[in-house]
Amino acid sequence: MATEPVGGPASPPDRPLWLAPDGWSIEILDQTRLPHQVVVQRLGTLDQVVEAIVTMQVRGAPLIGITAAYGLCMALMTDDSDMALTDAADSLLGSRPTAVNLSHAVHAVRDAALGARPGGRVEAAYVMAATLAQREVDACRSIGTHGLGLLRELSQGRRRAVQILTHCNAGWLATLRYGTALAPVYRAVEEQLPVHVWVDETRPRNQGWLTAWELEAGGVPHTVISDTMAAHLLQRHEVDIVIVGTDRTTRAGDVCNKIGTLSLALAARDAGVPFYAAVPSSSIDWSLDDWRAIPLEERGEEEVRWIRGVDATGLRREVSPGGTASQVRNLAFDVTPSRLLTGLITERGICPATREGLSECFPGLEPIDPSTR
Amino acid sequence: MATEPVGGPASPPDRPLWLAPDGWSIEILDQTRLPHQVVVQRLGTLDQVVEAIVTMQVRGAPLIGITAAYGLCMALMTDDSDMALTDAADSLLGSRPTAVNLSHAVHAVRDAALGARPGGRVEAAYVMAATLAQREVDACRSIGTHGLGLLRELSQGRRRAVQILTHCNAGWLATLRYGTALAPVYRAVEEQLPVHVWVDETRPRNQGWLTAWELEAGGVPHTVISDTMAAHLLQRHEVDIVIVGTDRTTRAGDVCNKIGTLSLALAARDAGVPFYAAVPSSSIDWSLDDWRAIPLEERGEEEVRWIRGVDATGLRREVSPGGTASQVRNLAFDVTPSRLLTGLITERGICPATREGLSECFPGLEPIDPSTR
Repeated sequence: MATEPVGGPASPPDRPLWLAPDGWSIEILDQTRLPHQVVVQRLGTLDQVVEAIVTMQVRGAPLIGITAAYGLCMALMTDDSDMALTDAADSLLGSRPTAVNLSHAVHAVRDAALGARPGGRVEAAYVMAATLAQREVDACRSIGTHGLGLLRELSQGRRRAVQILTHCNAGWLATLRYGTALAPVYRAVEEQLPVHVWVDETRPRNQGWLTAWELEAGGVPHTVISDTMAAHLLQRHEVDIVIVGTDRTTRAGDVCNKIGTLSLALAARDAGVPFYAAVPSSSIDWSLDDWRAIPLEERGEEEVRWIRGVDATGLRREVSPGGTASQVRNLAFDVTPSRLLTGLITERGICPATREGLSECFPGLEPIDPSTR
Repeated sequence: MATEPVGGPASPPDRPLWLAPDGWSIEILDQTRLPHQVVVQRLGTLDQVVEAIVTMQVRGAPLIGITAAYGLCMALMTDDSDMALTDAADSLLGSRPTAVNLSHAVHAVRDAALGARPGGRVEAAYVMAATLAQREVDACRSIGTHGLGLLRELSQGRRRAVQILTHCNAGWLATLRYGTALAPVYRAVEEQLPVHVWVDETRPRNQGWLTAWELEAGGVPHTVISDTMAAHLLQRHEVDIVIVGTDRTTRAGDVCNKIGTLSLALAARDAGVPFYAAVPSSSIDWSLDDWRAIPLEERGEEEVRWIRGVDATGLRREVSPGGTASQVRNLAFDVTPSRLLTGLITERGICPATREGLSECFPGLEPIDPSTR
């Protein structure tokens, strides 16, 4: 039986989402309030779930998937008809376009409901949501163990901590537990392998500060830098390995992730530093060969214009570093072609970023004909 | 006779520094207040000049040089002894380490003063400062004309505006007139060649918004992006050419510039997009063969932690997007090795980023034995 997510948050919280005491709604950490305030929000309707995804109160590809799964469950509580199911699924699928986890999760819950005995749709949906959640946790734990092996190798013969650079937040805030890119880091800390994490600020939404918050809470040595500084650190060999997450990885091994990832991959290649993506199978799009077909979300220009934070007195405020007349563009994701990746860290092990590499890790899963989904 | 800088600013201002009506102090646009407020500040003492350079009220390698030149003049007004001259020069040279323009300008004014007739040091210093200023303006104008040729070539056969990407601010705010990287853009606008400029935000100090302010005032179409988005635009061939400025270019053609430049160069190379630095001779360090010897300024972590801007009511504020517990690093410059540059746009023409290329543009200038400086 699936066990995630259950119960309330530990104190301090160590997970971003859990089933509420009522057993059917969920509670989340509002990530738009972090790292300054720990605010728990109850989501009890489909609309609330969609809103939380769109506004990035929940974010991170695996977490978006799980949140959407519970959103569909809640919709079925209200109306378990075929039409309501389709409408709810469409609404969730349209909330954010890039993370493939969203469609995987929505389709899995939908299929579970459609396959249920009469009157059993709601229960089947909740069981599937919990199963997906548990799978995500298991995948992250496993990614951590495989990635730990890489960090161990890198630590050989070094007198200093292994220097890891990451982008955005692919920690437990973005998943449910452990994280993807950060899972090896947390495993290293458990095993007392000395590590230090360089954290890209990750403009425009500054999710690097979420990573810093996580690492601080976990007692992991780390340093925040502007995104502009990463290539310099790589050039000077102050980084031993780059590990990032992914929102959608094609079956050819191309990695779509937070905007700015491509820059890092290019800088790592030029410096001869290994560059890995941590890829749970929930983030693999088995239907896509051509990364140019990945829908890349363009978000509002206000995210670039207005920077959220707290002032010196701790009050939440937004400031604009520029004027209002200029045009602004805000693409949220980019794609790192497979040729720039040293490998993929999956829950089934580390593989080359190729179709063959992924097929060997996930035999039988690939290809899934998209028309059957 | 040198003519720059003279008179007050036009309205709206079109230069960042001019000689005050008293004929010996200078007035500057306080660039820490831009783009939100146009504040003119009088600098009348050496200490005020050093402070303005350190706090980046004046910034941009050529402008730092000219400001320092006038600072040395002011010091001589107070005391024109050898010891005072040496102390003042040392004080200016220690204000910021990376831009070689600073030491070029300080040494030129010092040498002019030392070579003057008895009692004529102050006058000789002011004449040299004005000469340096005029040379900078002439160099920028010439860089604009040479760069315009590149833009014209790129416009051949295209149905859309030439797409230029730039980093930081290398416009007239950073020089005296025209700019370095932006000079070709302004010349293109004069010649009615359609251009559009992609402006990197340029974390952590967001000087991209200074560039946006300049371009807006000049009626130049432009779009501001986060630094993280540049590689993606290059990958999609939405950029035809990258032009950046420089704080110090070695005689081997390696380009030190604002942190984040290296990333752009790597992304441009991968995408096959030409990448140029606009290099006035005042930014060339003829004494350096090895770019690893360039002193790279590390600035305070508060520049990353605290973001300056205005709130929705127009009040100046600072916000912190993150917590206070994490360590932060803030290197202000990086180096793009010559191999990544398509060429250098100098006031003497466009040359390969090589020792031979620079020597052909500047015969006789290279090498200067650093021990004679």
